[in-house]
Amino acid sequence: MSERKVVFAPYNKSVTVADGANLIRTAMEAGVHINASCGGAGVCGKCRVLIESGEIEGGITEKLSAEDVAKGYRLACQSTVRSDLVVRIPVESEIDASVLNKMATPRKTARIHEVDFEELKEQGLFIPPIEKRYLDLPAPSDQDRQPDVTRIINFLKLKFNEHRLVARLPVIRKIPDILRAGGYKVTVTLARPVHPGRKSHIIHVEPGDTTARNFAIAMDIGTTTVYGQLIDLLTGEVLSQHGEFNGQISYGEDVLSRIVFAEKPGGLEKLHDVVIGTINTIIRRIVAKAQVDPEEISSITLAGNTTMTQLLLKINPRYIRYSPYVPAATLYPPISAMSLGMELNDHVTALVYPAISSYVGGDIVAGVMGAGLYRSDEVTLFIDIGTNAEIVVGNRDWFACAACSAGPAFEGGGIKFGMRASKGAIEDFSIDPVTLEPMLITIGNVRPKGICGSGLITMVATLFELGVIDNLGKFHVNLNTDRIRENEGRREYVLARAEETQIDRDITLSEDDIDNLIRAKGAIFSGYQTLLEEVGLSLDDVDKIVLAGGFGSYIDLEKAMVIGLLPEMDPGKITYIGNGSLMGCKMSALTNRLRRDVVEVTKKMTNFELSETRSYMNRYVASLFLPHTDLGLFPKLKARMSSRKALPRRESPAQ
Amino acid sequence: MSERKVVFAPYNKSVTVADGANLIRTAMEAGVHINASCGGAGVCGKCRVLIESGEIEGGITEKLSAEDVAKGYRLACQSTVRSDLVVRIPVESEIDASVLNKMATPRKTARIHEVDFEELKEQGLFIPPIEKRYLDLPAPSDQDRQPDVTRIINFLKLKFNEHRLVARLPVIRKIPDILRAGGYKVTVTLARPVHPGRKSHIIHVEPGDTTARNFAIAMDIGTTTVYGQLIDLLTGEVLSQHGEFNGQISYGEDVLSRIVFAEKPGGLEKLHDVVIGTINTIIRRIVAKAQVDPEEISSITLAGNTTMTQLLLKINPRYIRYSPYVPAATLYPPISAMSLGMELNDHVTALVYPAISSYVGGDIVAGVMGAGLYRSDEVTLFIDIGTNAEIVVGNRDWFACAACSAGPAFEGGGIKFGMRASKGAIEDFSIDPVTLEPMLITIGNVRPKGICGSGLITMVATLFELGVIDNLGKFHVNLNTDRIRENEGRREYVLARAEETQIDRDITLSEDDIDNLIRAKGAIFSGYQTLLEEVGLSLDDVDKIVLAGGFGSYIDLEKAMVIGLLPEMDPGKITYIGNGSLMGCKMSALTNRLRRDVVEVTKKMTNFELSETRSYMNRYVASLFLPHTDLGLFPKLKARMSSRKALPRRESPAQ
Repeated sequence: MSERKVVFAPYNKSVTVADGANLIRTAMEAGVHINASCGGAGVCGKCRVLIESGEIEGGITEKLSAEDVAKGYRLACQSTVRSDLVVRIPVESEIDASVLNKMATPRKTARIHEVDFEELKEQGLFIPPIEKRYLDLPAPSDQDRQPDVTRIINFLKLKFNEHRLVARLPVIRKIPDILRAGGYKVTVTLARPVHPGRKSHIIHVEPGDTTARNFAIAMDIGTTTVYGQLIDLLTGEVLSQHGEFNGQISYGEDVLSRIVFAEKPGGLEKLHDVVIGTINTIIRRIVAKAQVDPEEISSITLAGNTTMTQLLLKINPRYIRYSPYVPAATLYPPISAMSLGMELNDHVTALVYPAISSYVGGDIVAGVMGAGLYRSDEVTLFIDIGTNAEIVVGNRDWFACAACSAGPAFEGGGIKFGMRASKGAIEDFSIDPVTLEPMLITIGNVRPKGICGSGLITMVATLFELGVIDNLGKFHVNLNTDRIRENEGRREYVLARAEETQIDRDITLSEDDIDNLIRAKGAIFSGYQTLLEEVGLSLDDVDKIVLAGGFGSYIDLEKAMVIGLLPEMDPGKITYIGNGSLMGCKMSALTNRLRRDVVEVTKKMTNFELSETRSYMNRYVASLFLPHTDLGLFPKLKARMSSRKALPRRESPAQ
Repeated sequence: MSERKVVFAPYNKSVTVADGANLIRTAMEAGVHINASCGGAGVCGKCRVLIESGEIEGGITEKLSAEDVAKGYRLACQSTVRSDLVVRIPVESEIDASVLNKMATPRKTARIHEVDFEELKEQGLFIPPIEKRYLDLPAPSDQDRQPDVTRIINFLKLKFNEHRLVARLPVIRKIPDILRAGGYKVTVTLARPVHPGRKSHIIHVEPGDTTARNFAIAMDIGTTTVYGQLIDLLTGEVLSQHGEFNGQISYGEDVLSRIVFAEKPGGLEKLHDVVIGTINTIIRRIVAKAQVDPEEISSITLAGNTTMTQLLLKINPRYIRYSPYVPAATLYPPISAMSLGMELNDHVTALVYPAISSYVGGDIVAGVMGAGLYRSDEVTLFIDIGTNAEIVVGNRDWFACAACSAGPAFEGGGIKFGMRASKGAIEDFSIDPVTLEPMLITIGNVRPKGICGSGLITMVATLFELGVIDNLGKFHVNLNTDRIRENEGRREYVLARAEETQIDRDITLSEDDIDNLIRAKGAIFSGYQTLLEEVGLSLDDVDKIVLAGGFGSYIDLEKAMVIGLLPEMDPGKITYIGNGSLMGCKMSALTNRLRRDVVEVTKKMTNFELSETRSYMNRYVASLFLPHTDLGLFPKLKARMSSRKALPRRESPAQ
């Protein structure tokens, strides 16, 4: 795709974007503020910009007068970049321009780390877990009466130098007929041992040559959503993927309510059946999308938190809920996928990622494996941000982990207008430092419905750094704007007026909302601070950060550092792996090396229960500030704050 | 039990028997003929003997006159030995006495070889396959949050020096509740690896200390009968055993008709279900007899011929029936007994003995393992005599095997009055060399119903050695007896008159019957002759013979050598192991050493198809004589024959 350079005047900020980019998003990316309170839906008509040179597509609506259009004004949110551009933002005063210019920091999100199959091979990490071999066997005769299975095994020895082969009963049952149906030309599927020198299993035999078709499934069993990927084992490519809400949601939103349900008579079986139903729906979708026959699937690898894993395997999760919070097991043996109820062939083994503790589950272990933490000399901090945030720190030699309850703020829970990151959620935000007018961008460029986690972080960071809110998250009084108002004794900032929204109500950000975010980020920050302290390290010792979880890719890293969710460090050292659980499953599907290594990783991993670590509560309380009681932990922010000018105040109190 | 010495006059033959022995059987054992044609039922009244000294119990019936009783005569078949005795047999002439004396050879049956658990241990062959450990675990606490399975594994490491432990899913599912139900005092059952250094599986966990109760099942799946034994794994003792007809009999008497049935739609599943039903019946019986809870069973080991094994495992046996007669597999993997439909706990693994070929199955391999052939330097000939006779020859370094179709003569099939070895079957026989009157002993000492295999061998050998029949099995003409008569062009010997039998018909032995026996023994004799030749050996190279199968313990070895079923050798070198299949299963249940060794034995075993061995047919034809065309193969018999006097003949042809 062609790249386009867009220069924003009068700030002289430029940014390079792909042809076809939305202009208001381009401005946001450049750190350039344009008033906009309808989320990019073209409704408020505020994002008027003047195209000084170059061509855009669209941008003309009834919100612009014919005269403006003729002058070259367009609505940024309705404009598509089609050439290099010079775009002028109308500003109300010179002071505006200078302040805006200062604030303009380009949005920095984490580099996304993708597994590369070739890279695995180059690093010597590729040990194929499943391989097919095409055999053109001699037919039995009076001179050669080898039993059918022996015939296959001996031929594999002779022609492919395969040794230590065994066959399981279901495949033995099929072999006699398939050999004859295939005229003794068959393809055998071999499941490789995790440890070299152990036995390879003949798990499947098909007539003819099917060696070109060999697929696996990776699946992340989330409490809310289950994601599956179909993987081509020959190329490492993800052929299709699909997510579905976990059917268990009807029986409880969160892990604890699922456990409560599982304690009822038949509850465990019900939850097991329901999640298997979700898994089967996903399997059907991903094979259909990729035009793969379910019979061509050779393996499935799954990961989930400890409760999801126990429900998947029909292991009573009761004791996860009660002190001292003990899970059933760490390692789970491979098990027939069919025996769990999955609509897969009887030769398919389900591999389930091991758990560390009741609250650090297989999804986290999968993420750690997928991100390759265990192969690095650098001390890496792995954070999966969610209602339950899991933290792992370590390198090739050691690991420590902990879970902390951040609450649902990052997923929109406990926030008055909070919502999941779906269409209509305000995901990006900027503010005019003079007028305090907002610039809102929503997912899907539609009128706003609410605020998602990444949007919330950006808002709070922006408001704090500009001095609209203080380090307790309270709005300063008498600011020169009517967007801040009092509501039932708390102040709130009006992001969008009712008429600009989809919900016919003003969308606001209140002090209560900010407080919830502060508690959530405080729980996580104090979590990794405490964990590091437990292993004798501090934040300074962390070389890298890996973010996992639903919304990590959307977080503006510097904004996350402003609110004190992430420690201050070079954003280039922060990587986002997306759904780490799914990534780990995919990698385990591609190489047995991970299945071998994961046992070592679980052995090296020490779990800490933060609730019983004396210092955790103190650290947590110290974290309930923006960014922290100890501003010394955030030296760059401290420097910026000290050069900050106070915002203009009204003479009289707000009405 | 006290022993009693019984001396038979006038032959001065003595024998030592247990107190309580039956007197006519004692005479038979001593090789002393007493006329008796009612099988020992006390009906014919012929077995009058004079008790010269000592005491017997019983023996007085209305068949004896008061005068005889007063003189000390008793019916031998109704008499029980209660002291040392001198017993005089009334003989009709001096010549009788001398001939009888010469003929009197004590009955020699094979030494029965029993597995001895202590012997296994002494020979270093004892590697327990299943062991229990009682654990008094620390309860979890805030300081010790090990997952439940990890807790067990770590405790086993610490206290029992157990390593490389894994748990399967079904036991993981049970562990959380059982640990708490048992107050963390539990017994774990460990399944040991076949190869040292591999993983031990935690297969079961029970509350409390159950280490004193650990049982296994051994089962022989015969085409006709299924036998099971319940074994105490702590003592090696067989606590109970039970046999049932294989329920599959309703779907076909023999292996081939079962295969035909299995080819029908649903036939395989039906035969599988039916034999599982038989197995479950036996399990219920043997656990009830021994007062063992089925939950206390830790393993089951099974063996059967190749078809029975494939039906047991629900593997289509079709190709066993068609040239080139290829079975599905040699080795079968361990499989969950429950998944096969057995009424056993879900932790019980079924181990199934490997097959060699379509007609040398796991039952024979089990016999070879049970008899310890693979640990001996001596060349041993292993023969399982039945409708299908299987022959194995070899020592610790090599094995060769073959199957031959002997026909059903040994089981009473194709013999006019043939029957299985059950109550009323004539199992022993002797003949007065002058009068040609018979001495019959039946199983259960009841009136005869028919002739079983061992009885048939003894009859034919006795008649041949005395010169009543010739080496083609034809009766000499004009012998001085009305017991030989013609019937539809064939001669027959009347064993019992209608009124002496249970069936109100004369029970006879005809030339057709003898011919069938000759064909059966000829197939087997030429079978091992050919097999030995194939491996470059001859009968002279055989150091030992092991007999297996239903009736081996009843065969009078010297009689079997007379008819040419067994080669002439010192009877002391012939051992009988009974149901070798069951014996091998029992031993595999007791020690993993056998499970390891059996893989090597199957690798060392070469199967020969006699039907395609050119010399087999020639050797077979040469065997269709008593004992063989080549009398030089039976030098002792040849010597006895040459000193034999011709029997007295009638002057005129028999009426």
